Amino acid sequence: MKGTVLYAPGDIRFEDRETPTIEEPTDAVIRMAATCVCGSDLWPYRGLQPTNGPTPMGHEYCGFVEEVGGAVRSVKPGQFVVGSFATSDNVCPHCRYGYPSACAQREFITRAQAPFLRVPLADGTLVATAEAPSGDLIPSLLTTSDVLGTGWFAADAANVKPGATAVVVGDGAVGLLAVLSAKQMGAERIIAMSRHEARQNLAREFGATDIVAARGDEGVERIKELTGGIGADSVLECVGTQESMMQAIRSARPGGFVSYVGVPHGVKLEGAELFFAHVHLHGGPAPVRRYLPHLIDLVLQEKINPGKVFDLSLPLDQVAEGYRAMDERRAIKTLLRP
Amino acid sequence: MKGTVLYAPGDIRFEDRETPTIEEPTDAVIRMAATCVCGSDLWPYRGLQPTNGPTPMGHEYCGFVEEVGGAVRSVKPGQFVVGSFATSDNVCPHCRYGYPSACAQREFITRAQAPFLRVPLADGTLVATAEAPSGDLIPSLLTTSDVLGTGWFAADAANVKPGATAVVVGDGAVGLLAVLSAKQMGAERIIAMSRHEARQNLAREFGATDIVAARGDEGVERIKELTGGIGADSVLECVGTQESMMQAIRSARPGGFVSYVGVPHGVKLEGAELFFAHVHLHGGPAPVRRYLPHLIDLVLQEKINPGKVFDLSLPLDQVAEGYRAMDERRAIKTLLRP
Repeated sequence: MKGTVLYAPGDIRFEDRETPTIEEPTDAVIRMAATCVCGSDLWPYRGLQPTNGPTPMGHEYCGFVEEVGGAVRSVKPGQFVVGSFATSDNVCPHCRYGYPSACAQREFITRAQAPFLRVPLADGTLVATAEAPSGDLIPSLLTTSDVLGTGWFAADAANVKPGATAVVVGDGAVGLLAVLSAKQMGAERIIAMSRHEARQNLAREFGATDIVAARGDEGVERIKELTGGIGADSVLECVGTQESMMQAIRSARPGGFVSYVGVPHGVKLEGAELFFAHVHLHGGPAPVRRYLPHLIDLVLQEKINPGKVFDLSLPLDQVAEGYRAMDERRAIKTLLRP
Repeated sequence: MKGTVLYAPGDIRFEDRETPTIEEPTDAVIRMAATCVCGSDLWPYRGLQPTNGPTPMGHEYCGFVEEVGGAVRSVKPGQFVVGSFATSDNVCPHCRYGYPSACAQREFITRAQAPFLRVPLADGTLVATAEAPSGDLIPSLLTTSDVLGTGWFAADAANVKPGATAVVVGDGAVGLLAVLSAKQMGAERIIAMSRHEARQNLAREFGATDIVAARGDEGVERIKELTGGIGADSVLECVGTQESMMQAIRSARPGGFVSYVGVPHGVKLEGAELFFAHVHLHGGPAPVRRYLPHLIDLVLQEKINPGKVFDLSLPLDQVAEGYRAMDERRAIKTLLRP
């Protein structure tokens, strides 16, 4: 088969790779229904995160089970499955505590931008649907694998409750789905920080009640104005830069909640400022596996349509253009079909 | 009257000051029953925090109302009262949200190491007891003003629940009372980090089940060993240095809770490490006023004896020796009697 490999910043190739096979009895191999490019793939693509030589790419996936190892019990060939970007055994203390993305046996999936994928710890990692979903639901099901699960964690970790005022910093696909998640959790007011019209429109469609284009200190000022000088109950940081983190922390009310769900790049938090900001802070790799059954249900019942974040759909062999379009912000998120 | 003034690092003087009077109709003036030296007073005493010229000291207090302003309704002359180190109106959005120490009208009390103290926002800040307490309860009642309230916040912000494993970093008076608080909240295992025998003994008396003398990475290793490699559910950081903060964060389990209740001095948190540590982080000036009625009750019912942290009691005019004894770690905490 062919798969996606990052050779150097800006250099994505779709080239011959070994077709994956069962290596451990706990593995499954799945045939991809759809995969996509993640905002986090852009960090190494832009050279903002070092890589060690050619790196196989992709960690968002859904598809049909092709083969399973001898120890796999919960999924079987032919079933449609979605899994998290982080594998988990679902039985270790961290999994049982609700943090499968910190599983004692965790591996981060890579190589998913390909027609076939080996998934370790298949029993713990994969969730099968009762029947094969209709094709139009595939994009939305794909989002549960990471981008929706991560947006959902942003809202959950920021303690979004019915009636709350939530601010979402970042208008990438995660930020937009954080808006959708905050809406599902009952936020009454959802302020999306965005300066791009297409993204503002999608944010509104997902439930944003206000749009703020200003950033940094000016953005914080605007949030304070919109909240009667108080600050927001919940702030969902979906970028990962120093500016966005500080904007998030300064936008929250004392005692409010700030979540951060993208790997922070070059971020340093000043202890004394954090102390006097009086916020709750929680983040990390989203425990997507915990949310998967619920999110898959919401999609199958067509209560949400997170697949709308895909505004570009390409055949898998045009993956390089998929990266370019996202890098140049011509696309919010690129769906790839094998 | 005479009051306590810090002139320079190590230079505490007890000297003539104006006797405080009612300045605003919302003020009360109280006659001190007892006051004390706080661990946070040692930062400027040691020159680790800059001061601008001579600085009146003290922010922990309890005593009898001497006089109230014309607008004060909830306390009256003769009543015994305790107040928080931070004033609060108890009606602003931050107070109503549970964060009176972020009150829109907050002032930090200073000048309490004196026989009389003016307390602004008396209605919101002070809590009166039904009758004058017996003298032997005064030290414990005094602790509710800050050191116990802050230890209590450490346990609350670290989400200590029945059955939890809690680690307390720091064996100062706040850390010791954080042990007591974690015990009250039902922690099953309480690991106190301390290398001083007298403090270890008091920690055990307050409820510590384990003592760890190791610090830094070695301390983290020990916590991991004691928790089966998992890390603690709750870690209560009661020091405020870079080392203690990192020790706290690294001692928590993924998804666990870390609180920090002393002003961080020179602390910088690396975003990416915090992200992968997967912890909840919450801290700030303790919202003591929220806890005061409950803590005062616990003391009056003699369910707790937090006053044991005072292992040195001096007449107020010997306040300089009180600072010296704490600085040299000859005393855990100094009680001062006018």
